[in-house]
Amino acid sequence: MKFKVYLSGEIHSDWREKIQQGVEAKGLNVELHSPVTNHEASDDCGDKILGAESEAFWKDHKAAKINAIRIRKYIAESDIVVVRFGEKYKQWNAAFDAGYAAALGKSIITLHDEALTHALKEVDAAALAVCQTPEQVVEILNYSLNQ
Amino acid sequence: MKFKVYLSGEIHSDWREKIQQGVEAKGLNVELHSPVTNHEASDDCGDKILGAESEAFWKDHKAAKINAIRIRKYIAESDIVVVRFGEKYKQWNAAFDAGYAAALGKSIITLHDEALTHALKEVDAAALAVCQTPEQVVEILNYSLNQ
Amino acid sequence: MKFKVYLSGEIHSDWREKIQQGVEAKGLNVELHSPVTNHEASDDCGDKILGAESEAFWKDHKAAKINAIRIRKYIAESDIVVVRFGEKYKQWNAAFDAGYAAALGKSIITLHDEALTHALKEVDAAALAVCQTPEQVVEILNYSLNQ
Amino acid sequence: MKFKVYLSGEIHSDWREKIQQGVEAKGLNVELHSPVTNHEASDDCGDKILGAESEAFWKDHKAAKINAIRIRKYIAESDIVVVRFGEKYKQWNAAFDAGYAAALGKSIITLHDEALTHALKEVDAAALAVCQTPEQVVEILNYSLNQ
Amino acid sequence: MKFKVYLSGEIHSDWREKIQQGVEAKGLNVELHSPVTNHEASDDCGDKILGAESEAFWKDHKAAKINAIRIRKYIAESDIVVVRFGEKYKQWNAAFDAGYAAALGKSIITLHDEALTHALKEVDAAALAVCQTPEQVVEILNYSLNQ
Amino acid sequence: MKFKVYLSGEIHSDWREKIQQGVEAKGLNVELHSPVTNHEASDDCGDKILGAESEAFWKDHKAAKINAIRIRKYIAESDIVVVRFGEKYKQWNAAFDAGYAAALGKSIITLHDEALTHALKEVDAAALAVCQTPEQVVEILNYSLNQ
Amino acid sequence: MKFKVYLSGEIHSDWREKIQQGVEAKGLNVELHSPVTNHEASDDCGDKILGAESEAFWKDHKAAKINAIRIRKYIAESDIVVVRFGEKYKQWNAAFDAGYAAALGKSIITLHDEALTHALKEVDAAALAVCQTPEQVVEILNYSLNQ
Amino acid sequence: MKFKVYLSGEIHSDWREKIQQGVEAKGLNVELHSPVTNHEASDDCGDKILGAESEAFWKDHKAAKINAIRIRKYIAESDIVVVRFGEKYKQWNAAFDAGYAAALGKSIITLHDEALTHALKEVDAAALAVCQTPEQVVEILNYSLNQ
Repeated sequence: MKFKVYLSGEIHSDWREKIQQGVEAKGLNVELHSPVTNHEASDDCGDKILGAESEAFWKDHKAAKINAIRIRKYIAESDIVVVRFGEKYKQWNAAFDAGYAAALGKSIITLHDEALTHALKEVDAAALAVCQTPEQVVEILNYSLNQ
Repeated sequence: MKFKVYLSGEIHSDWREKIQQGVEAKGLNVELHSPVTNHEASDDCGDKILGAESEAFWKDHKAAKINAIRIRKYIAESDIVVVRFGEKYKQWNAAFDAGYAAALGKSIITLHDEALTHALKEVDAAALAVCQTPEQVVEILNYSLNQ
Repeated sequence: MKFKVYLSGEIHSDWREKIQQGVEAKGLNVELHSPVTNHEASDDCGDKILGAESEAFWKDHKAAKINAIRIRKYIAESDIVVVRFGEKYKQWNAAFDAGYAAALGKSIITLHDEALTHALKEVDAAALAVCQTPEQVVEILNYSLNQ
Repeated sequence: MKFKVYLSGEIHSDWREKIQQGVEAKGLNVELHSPVTNHEASDDCGDKILGAESEAFWKDHKAAKINAIRIRKYIAESDIVVVRFGEKYKQWNAAFDAGYAAALGKSIITLHDEALTHALKEVDAAALAVCQTPEQVVEILNYSLNQ
Repeated sequence: MKFKVYLSGEIHSDWREKIQQGVEAKGLNVELHSPVTNHEASDDCGDKILGAESEAFWKDHKAAKINAIRIRKYIAESDIVVVRFGEKYKQWNAAFDAGYAAALGKSIITLHDEALTHALKEVDAAALAVCQTPEQVVEILNYSLNQ
Repeated sequence: MKFKVYLSGEIHSDWREKIQQGVEAKGLNVELHSPVTNHEASDDCGDKILGAESEAFWKDHKAAKINAIRIRKYIAESDIVVVRFGEKYKQWNAAFDAGYAAALGKSIITLHDEALTHALKEVDAAALAVCQTPEQVVEILNYSLNQ
Repeated sequence: MKFKVYLSGEIHSDWREKIQQGVEAKGLNVELHSPVTNHEASDDCGDKILGAESEAFWKDHKAAKINAIRIRKYIAESDIVVVRFGEKYKQWNAAFDAGYAAALGKSIITLHDEALTHALKEVDAAALAVCQTPEQVVEILNYSLNQ
Repeated sequence: MKFKVYLSGEIHSDWREKIQQGVEAKGLNVELHSPVTNHEASDDCGDKILGAESEAFWKDHKAAKINAIRIRKYIAESDIVVVRFGEKYKQWNAAFDAGYAAALGKSIITLHDEALTHALKEVDAAALAVCQTPEQVVEILNYSLNQ
């Protein structure tokens, strides 16, 4: 049986690539999905496709909704949602995805440094595993599929 | 008909009191609920009730889960979830609540300064109203009930 | 047992009042709810409460979303959704409400003249009763409660 | 991953063909579905298959229900429902489909001229994108799949 | 806590009255609901309220749908659905109600003579109790509430 | 897209074969499923597999539950449930399946002679098509797939 | 707001009374519900109400199903399910209730001695709090309601 | 059509292998899934992958949650959940799985000796078949697929 995994959160480090490489190295039967991780493309998609907005709020609004089409589908079809929080930025969309996934009964794995433990306690409380490295995420996938 | 409203997010300003006062001043048929807003009590409830933990992670974990009992019930029974984001702190639990409420089909109202617009675009995209002041939240409740 | 009834659709005739009068005349245990039926208030609520928009699209967008807070709650809590279509206007929101109510498994009663039969065939196909007068709606409520 | 898209609404213009061509030109992994778009076949299917009705209402009723078998399946299995409104006709079935899809949590894209903005504000408020051309719909599919 | 009980099925014997009397004699906190049990009123409601049909099929169709408004509400709000099958008539509507209630996860109690055991085996297999007398139904309610 | 169709009801005539032949003759993309239609095997499966019961009620009970494993799966995975009622026997299981399918939101097609119209009015009221011949069922499948 | 709490599990100690007393002493707005805790009545209800069975399996089967009517209702209406495991007996019904409640998204509190930690790890993993004394359960209710 | 079957419970006997062999011998279209049945691996997965815990409770907690990722997925995708109880150990996780599966509407088959009948009466009451040997489970799969 195949696991479908959605990788939500931080887009400024290579954690997705590391999970991808680990999954491939072990030959795991895992399908990985991500949001649009090109920051500029993600911010500008509304204006580019549907026409420019004069106000920042509506530019963001249109973009966020178009991005939601992909995100919702991938979360809805996932078995596991991995949510990564980095040191920088607010990353409220990652926490939003985690809450959304939790309400749908998805298995959640969080991925963050120990320094964020206190700030993320509510999100971690809804997770089935709290990882600090992409390798740990891969190990959990490997264990869940092949033990 | 009565509206049940859950007030999620920031605990270091008086926005809940302002909404409460506005609701009372207008005599709105609204039931307001909040999480435990006493920061220390919220952080320590696990250790206090169930026994002290030696590791910070598990102290937080136990506390967050106990707090989830109240939060889940109030969100599940709400018609509207108001989510407040302030300038300080990560407030990932507020974004988590918003995602959770969105997946349950609750009506979401966000409340934050314009400065946070870009960082909150995904949360705002799931909201039915984006407010900047508690008075606007009260106006929406008033309009929805009494117009 | 009480029936909760949501009255969706046309706002330019007195069909809601007639149902209200019929329900009162017969002393039926029925709770009637409606959207905001003041056309101007409904159109302007976004601008008035949250600030004016320069573009018509966003003005409408903000207003429609605020109105959705009330509509969603009332439909979600209704046993019956009565959807009225008049001769004039597109009334796509009424058909939207009907589809929304159908997917939630609500009992739908449509109310329209015979002249609209062909154009409304898909909506009528999802209804448990197709009425031509408010009195017929009242008769169905009376029959369902008191026979 | 493949996107399943249901194309609801107007049957008197070539918007479906344009989306089909755009999807093929870009080689998108998209499965497009439509209702029966042959107007006469759609109107007459009840009488033809199950026997003629003497009254127009019941002829329409039987046809609309048979058509619902296909429509319901396609909407239920879709990731995205595109709803097209043209200048002519009431198109209440399109708005009904939009409401139905909204209650099921489907991603909705509307497609209509700016002139219809005010009349469609409630439907647009439930959409994740409001397009004016079939090309924009194709762009959104392309962006969601391939960015 | 109160039990809401819907009494589906046979309308030509006094089993509903016996359950009602038993519930009152024991002072049980039970709310009993029934479909329209006046056979003629039930058959004619469509024609009477919405206008006469020339074809028997459509007369029945309109009546059955109006009756469904009440039946659906009562089943949806019930904790327990009691389904009574007598010796005579097809009573397919009772079996339909049982299947409908089963899919909604309601507790089902069947009530029928031993002679019908084989014919009702699929319905009984979905029931939590199979009774032969109204007194047994009352005993189960009494036990569930007061033991 | 493929339609999955569950054929519930009468097991003493060749209506299933006729639908099967029609589907094959037209090359329809339809997957047909049925309950165990060998009457004796269906009645005896509990005793045969799990051991003989001394009481008829429990023999029937065990058999009906084992049969439910297959029936539930097929109904749950179906797009369409065709329910056939013949002249003979009570066929309460067919009506039960119809109610069960209705509550799950499946598209229901009934198949019966005109003589049964009045007795089946509640079941027909939940159907999207009421057929008198297997050929009509095939026509509806053909129309829904290929028009 | 009131909390509804279902107390599942062990019937041979006074933990329910202690929670009841604690709730009363603190004047908490809590509604407590339990299964039938009279062991003999619970075991014999099937035979007593519906007639004696000659085989132990069916006697148990009938009793367990009648008891399920009450249990299902109370769990379905609860905000919190407290599941108590004692030293003796298998108590598989308590673990079954916990799994049932978990799938419904109820908040679960387990109550057991430390000695059972390893054997109950899967149940505890689904709980929001793991208590060792009834007083701790009361404290959690008090905290959730009144902090 | 293929049946997906999850095999929950006892890990110290060869019942899973016997079902596997029976399924292969008969060439059944059945997909069998199990939890991690290596006791040590299952107990230690949390410590091994995410780091050692000093307290037994948290070691168990982390392991149980990681194991839940696999268990939840397999139960959610199963048509049938077979739950095996042996003579030894508490096996509360098996009963928890049964309750969880019951609330999701899965078909449950229990597998245990007659000696456990009384202790398992609530679990058996939620099952569609109660087996004493793996061969009986295979027979039911064979019957459900091929009769």
